[in-house]
Amino acid sequence: MTTHTVGPIFTDLYELTMAASYFSHQRFDKATFSLFIRNHAANRTYYVAAGLEDILNELEAFQFSETDIAYLKSTGLFSDDFLDYLSKLRFSGAVHALPEGTIFFPEEPVAEVTAPLIEAQLLETLILNTIGFQTMIATKAARCVHAAGGRAVIDFSLRRTQGRDAGMKVARSGYIAGFAGTSNVLAGKIYGIPVSGTMAHSYVTAFDSELEAFSAYSKTFPQSTVLLIDTYDTLQGARNAAAVAREMKKKGASLVGVRLDSGDMAELSRQVRKILDDAGFAEVKIFASSGFDEYKVADVLSRGAKIDAFGVGTKVGVSADEPYVDIVYKMVRFKDRDVRKLSPGKITLAGEKQVFRKFDSKGQYVEDIIGLRDEIIEDAKPLLVKVMENGTRTLPSPSLEEIRGRFEDNFSRLNPKYKDILQQHHYPVRLSARLKALQERT
Amino acid sequence: MTTHTVGPIFTDLYELTMAASYFSHQRFDKATFSLFIRNHAANRTYYVAAGLEDILNELEAFQFSETDIAYLKSTGLFSDDFLDYLSKLRFSGAVHALPEGTIFFPEEPVAEVTAPLIEAQLLETLILNTIGFQTMIATKAARCVHAAGGRAVIDFSLRRTQGRDAGMKVARSGYIAGFAGTSNVLAGKIYGIPVSGTMAHSYVTAFDSELEAFSAYSKTFPQSTVLLIDTYDTLQGARNAAAVAREMKKKGASLVGVRLDSGDMAELSRQVRKILDDAGFAEVKIFASSGFDEYKVADVLSRGAKIDAFGVGTKVGVSADEPYVDIVYKMVRFKDRDVRKLSPGKITLAGEKQVFRKFDSKGQYVEDIIGLRDEIIEDAKPLLVKVMENGTRTLPSPSLEEIRGRFEDNFSRLNPKYKDILQQHHYPVRLSARLKALQERT
Repeated sequence: MTTHTVGPIFTDLYELTMAASYFSHQRFDKATFSLFIRNHAANRTYYVAAGLEDILNELEAFQFSETDIAYLKSTGLFSDDFLDYLSKLRFSGAVHALPEGTIFFPEEPVAEVTAPLIEAQLLETLILNTIGFQTMIATKAARCVHAAGGRAVIDFSLRRTQGRDAGMKVARSGYIAGFAGTSNVLAGKIYGIPVSGTMAHSYVTAFDSELEAFSAYSKTFPQSTVLLIDTYDTLQGARNAAAVAREMKKKGASLVGVRLDSGDMAELSRQVRKILDDAGFAEVKIFASSGFDEYKVADVLSRGAKIDAFGVGTKVGVSADEPYVDIVYKMVRFKDRDVRKLSPGKITLAGEKQVFRKFDSKGQYVEDIIGLRDEIIEDAKPLLVKVMENGTRTLPSPSLEEIRGRFEDNFSRLNPKYKDILQQHHYPVRLSARLKALQERT
Repeated sequence: MTTHTVGPIFTDLYELTMAASYFSHQRFDKATFSLFIRNHAANRTYYVAAGLEDILNELEAFQFSETDIAYLKSTGLFSDDFLDYLSKLRFSGAVHALPEGTIFFPEEPVAEVTAPLIEAQLLETLILNTIGFQTMIATKAARCVHAAGGRAVIDFSLRRTQGRDAGMKVARSGYIAGFAGTSNVLAGKIYGIPVSGTMAHSYVTAFDSELEAFSAYSKTFPQSTVLLIDTYDTLQGARNAAAVAREMKKKGASLVGVRLDSGDMAELSRQVRKILDDAGFAEVKIFASSGFDEYKVADVLSRGAKIDAFGVGTKVGVSADEPYVDIVYKMVRFKDRDVRKLSPGKITLAGEKQVFRKFDSKGQYVEDIIGLRDEIIEDAKPLLVKVMENGTRTLPSPSLEEIRGRFEDNFSRLNPKYKDILQQHHYPVRLSARLKALQERT
């Protein structure tokens, strides 16, 4: 199962060696680390927060097992005192975070963790991996949904995701960002996401003819048949589909759709639409798959494609144009002192922070102000929420539908110019006067 | 835990709807599916097989759970008869495969599965995901090891891999392809891979000065300290490291190395080497990290870098230049009849196949011949091995060290011209006369 917690040794060794050294020097002071995306990637103007639920689940279960401790001992790196300390360690800190589904921008904290230094440091690898990846995919998915302009988008990526956990989280992150469903059956079971899919080319070739294959399938699934029509010749496939639709109609069943999986989708979809319409099946939908991402969706629609739903696979499931995100987790406060790292091109904002969002009279986003956590900025909504205190959740876990609803609401309030998939317009984000003054002091 | 099996519903829905239709039409005939990479990616001339162990583990455990069946029932798509059939289904087929660590080329089968049609079809998503991803990463890692020319390469990618399973499998696939170790502690525990890592910038900034931080760390780890020297000024960091090395020497300890994580690595590494050498620490090693992949490794070495070991992260962990591989799983035989799919640019070789490799007198690879499984080709070694029959392994599971040894042996026999990271020379692969004749018949 891919939804189990991975536990505290799913981490880089240096988190543990640093912890051992902090332990031997008795550095148990409280620290705050801030998680944020440093720079806009080439084609990203906004990000969609995702992955927090996994982190909170890990933190509530945070505990080194006996076999973890035995393994760490076997490395010869750690003292018995330290291993004993680890074996008793639980996460006792606080987490402030953007709820999943929230739209945010570079430099804005996605989450801030406040805990004794060792605990806060140990989370680094896990939090970067989890929130970084899921945010990257939710963002990619949002771009696809936007490009599809109201047409359904379905996740078909499972066969090409980078491993199993990725396959599960792509389905979940895509659903948060408005996908209509997924082909991933386990994601249907675990997350309750609608599942989708009918047949592959191998099904068609397992029968003596395409027509025989279509007819056989329609008998098994009289209410949910989508016929893959490009195994031999797409237009003949469309005519065969129309023939099966007639056959189904006689029996009181109905064909849901046909799927195109190769060729010039704009041109083919128009021709197939005409064949279906001429045969009296205007209600039969056209699904399209094969190499779709936001760019290809926008391209075929701009060329007049008659497509009702897009299956997106590989390029979305691995975020092929930007397969990683520049997300970092940096110490911003230690021992009641705000700290700041200054390297060329790598600025970290000192202090415990909040993101304040301003709205216009219609509820549209106007600007964000990154301020101090204890600031009050008038007419602005603070976005980070305290989700954990003393190692315990402070809020009930939201349902996936709630998270999806939050994204939909957020996205509807973002000016379309920031959603353009090719043009980069940067949404205004500034620092509050108090946060600026703090940076100058530190 | 990321090493659990995921079970048979980690699959695309269409595998199950096709199965339901095969079931309702009583299509239980035996089929063979072939797994292969279709085309050379832009910068890949060879591939390194990886992921088979995970597949065999899944197949031995293949069983729909009660909750799987209940979930499938809840979709309303499947008949009770079919669900009853699924609940009793075990994998009863045979698998022929390239052992992990084997070098192979496009069009060559990585694995062939022979089983009743439903069983063979149901595996598609899992086998593509698992072997595709792990092969992609082992291949990327082999390119890095080659570029490093004998210097150690260590996996530091965990924070940026696409999810948790990816983080585990990158560590394992990298180790197969010759990485010296990983930062991933859980991979150390689960797979026995050597773990590596010491400190982050946050450690240095948690002390009042760099020198204090270095000294504190060296006291905790007198035998395994690598100091990160670029938090403030790299050259001053090198001088501080030399000072700590002197301090350690007085106490009978010794500094293992320093690590550079930013700046011009070629230039900085030479300057740092001189500082350490002049201080009498020629044995202290220089580690380098930050944005390394095979291209950056080759670049800094060509510019005279004095680096002993490379930490590779993000770009290797997601195979950033080629984040997916064009791997497919196609039916090649059904009901004792060889089958072939012919679409433009998408040719599948009909028939159950074998890859035969020819060697020169020094044991170097000369050419590969893709033939029929039952052919005998003189002076050539058949590469696919029967690893499963009647759903049971026919061979003991190899250790990771054995797999790593196989890769090392394979790689040593590949002419260096095919290993070039920028120039594409295509290794000769041809079809046997019998396989060619079969293609013409089908």
